[in-house]
Amino acid sequence: MAVNSSKLSLLEALKEKRSNYVSGEALARELNVSRTAIWKHIKSLRKNGYTIEPCPKLGYKYMAAPDKLLPLEILHNLKTNCLGRHAIHFLEVGSTQDVAKEMVVKGASEGTLIIAEGQTKGRGRLGRTWLSPQGQGIYLSLILRPHISPIHAPRITLMAAVAIAHAIEAITPVEAQIKWPNDVLILHRKVAGILTEIDAEMDRTNAVILGIGININNDSTSFPRELRNTVTSLRMETGREISRLGLLQTLLLELENLYETFKVKGFIPILGVWKEKDVTIGSRVKAVLMDRELVGQAVDIDHEGALILRDEKGDIHRIVSGDVTLLRIR
Amino acid sequence: MAVNSSKLSLLEALKEKRSNYVSGEALARELNVSRTAIWKHIKSLRKNGYTIEPCPKLGYKYMAAPDKLLPLEILHNLKTNCLGRHAIHFLEVGSTQDVAKEMVVKGASEGTLIIAEGQTKGRGRLGRTWLSPQGQGIYLSLILRPHISPIHAPRITLMAAVAIAHAIEAITPVEAQIKWPNDVLILHRKVAGILTEIDAEMDRTNAVILGIGININNDSTSFPRELRNTVTSLRMETGREISRLGLLQTLLLELENLYETFKVKGFIPILGVWKEKDVTIGSRVKAVLMDRELVGQAVDIDHEGALILRDEKGDIHRIVSGDVTLLRIR
Repeated sequence: MAVNSSKLSLLEALKEKRSNYVSGEALARELNVSRTAIWKHIKSLRKNGYTIEPCPKLGYKYMAAPDKLLPLEILHNLKTNCLGRHAIHFLEVGSTQDVAKEMVVKGASEGTLIIAEGQTKGRGRLGRTWLSPQGQGIYLSLILRPHISPIHAPRITLMAAVAIAHAIEAITPVEAQIKWPNDVLILHRKVAGILTEIDAEMDRTNAVILGIGININNDSTSFPRELRNTVTSLRMETGREISRLGLLQTLLLELENLYETFKVKGFIPILGVWKEKDVTIGSRVKAVLMDRELVGQAVDIDHEGALILRDEKGDIHRIVSGDVTLLRIR
Repeated sequence: MAVNSSKLSLLEALKEKRSNYVSGEALARELNVSRTAIWKHIKSLRKNGYTIEPCPKLGYKYMAAPDKLLPLEILHNLKTNCLGRHAIHFLEVGSTQDVAKEMVVKGASEGTLIIAEGQTKGRGRLGRTWLSPQGQGIYLSLILRPHISPIHAPRITLMAAVAIAHAIEAITPVEAQIKWPNDVLILHRKVAGILTEIDAEMDRTNAVILGIGININNDSTSFPRELRNTVTSLRMETGREISRLGLLQTLLLELENLYETFKVKGFIPILGVWKEKDVTIGSRVKAVLMDRELVGQAVDIDHEGALILRDEKGDIHRIVSGDVTLLRIR
């Protein structure tokens, strides 16, 4: 469904008079469009799942929006200036990351959001799968175009982890934690993941494609048995349905605020808030790297976002990327 | 034009009997396909610019291939195992890099070659333009999928510079030089450029998109006046037309050999041959970096491919990426 401004205005006018009938004539007058345009928009909205009751004498009554992350709904009351203001929605897609990458090549602007109700080939880090059952989570890709060297792109990942943790805590009563580098946990179970990909030259980033998956209204049966001890959803943690739309809007605003801070003040303030939510530093960890495994104490995250690990012998290792398991939590 | 094996076999059979007529019946028998198939293939070949003379009683006579880098021509006698064996050809395209990136998302395999007779939006490093006049140069993008960390992708650029220099020297009598990191020069004028882009996660390279532009049969009027002292073409240097096809096939083989070495033995042997063609080390250079300029002596290229520069005060700088101008050549 294309978002045009008169359709958005119509929807907002209907929502304002929620549960009351408004005549097509009054709507046409208010929005300064023809009655035919009103009729067409209403038809399109209903086709997209909006419950709008027509009544021959009285006009139209807005009843409910569909439980979908439609651009029209995302835009309604969205407080960001840039992120998510241009959004593409899919009922089902292979991977939002792949759509975003193709849009990057075609010149999509910063802040463009690709979002899907479900993914058939949702991707996680290192070629892994991200389970993306229909309507249960948030599966999105955001196109960012920061003026950074490609080697600094991991900073965007850490920033996103903070934004997710903050958004979860703003919308639910649970406490979110971050495990280095980019897992968002609740009570040590993974609730969200981040896949940051770049399209870059050697010394110039064309685009960062920030992929985020959050388990929201899944119940435990939506996860394979072997994952049930390590993953969770917001519904499983809070015992209630969570508004995906509300969480998404909050997340976009948190991301935008942190991203502005990052662009103006650099990475250090981001690292500061990251550390407040971190559960890695001080824990005993196992780090699986490309070519070896290390076990030891997570001592710090340095100003580049790398993990500093002290092994059994007391040797210090600087880990730029890898898989970390918490063995004994601080 | 799609490349299928019977069309390729037909073309090779015709070329073998070059300047003699071969009957459709004999061709059909030799290739074990119907006479209708032969007729269709001939029609498609002629449509793509092949000069093939039909004669009602005698059959077909092969006269000439078009001066285009058609996949059928590239494949003919190509000695590589992988690079260029799957090729997509455009008469004109915006940028072969952009086509390649979209193909990467769709899963194109290693070695896939995108090649164009001309580009309307040919790209160089750092958002610059690469002049790509019709039929005068080689404008290609190769999809590679090496198992390397994204931070090691510059090694692919250095490797490509060596392959281009070797291919030029194999096909022409001129000597090619390399200026760090990736300009191929003849007598200090630029004849080829490399744009290496990556599609990557933080710790995993999905693909390296290796873009190469070589000025081949341009005369000086095809360059803007202000560039004529700094760029050149193989024709301008040798005084004769150079076979783009021959150079391309040699380049693909040189690239494949170096790439195999790189995968098996690592970067050090590549750096060794790179240094043999290098004109940077020992020269006085100006390096324009993201945030500053440095002037001094180019002392070495280290094992990571970074330029080591000693400035006026004797301070040593390690330069990972930047624009380098040779001020006084060694």
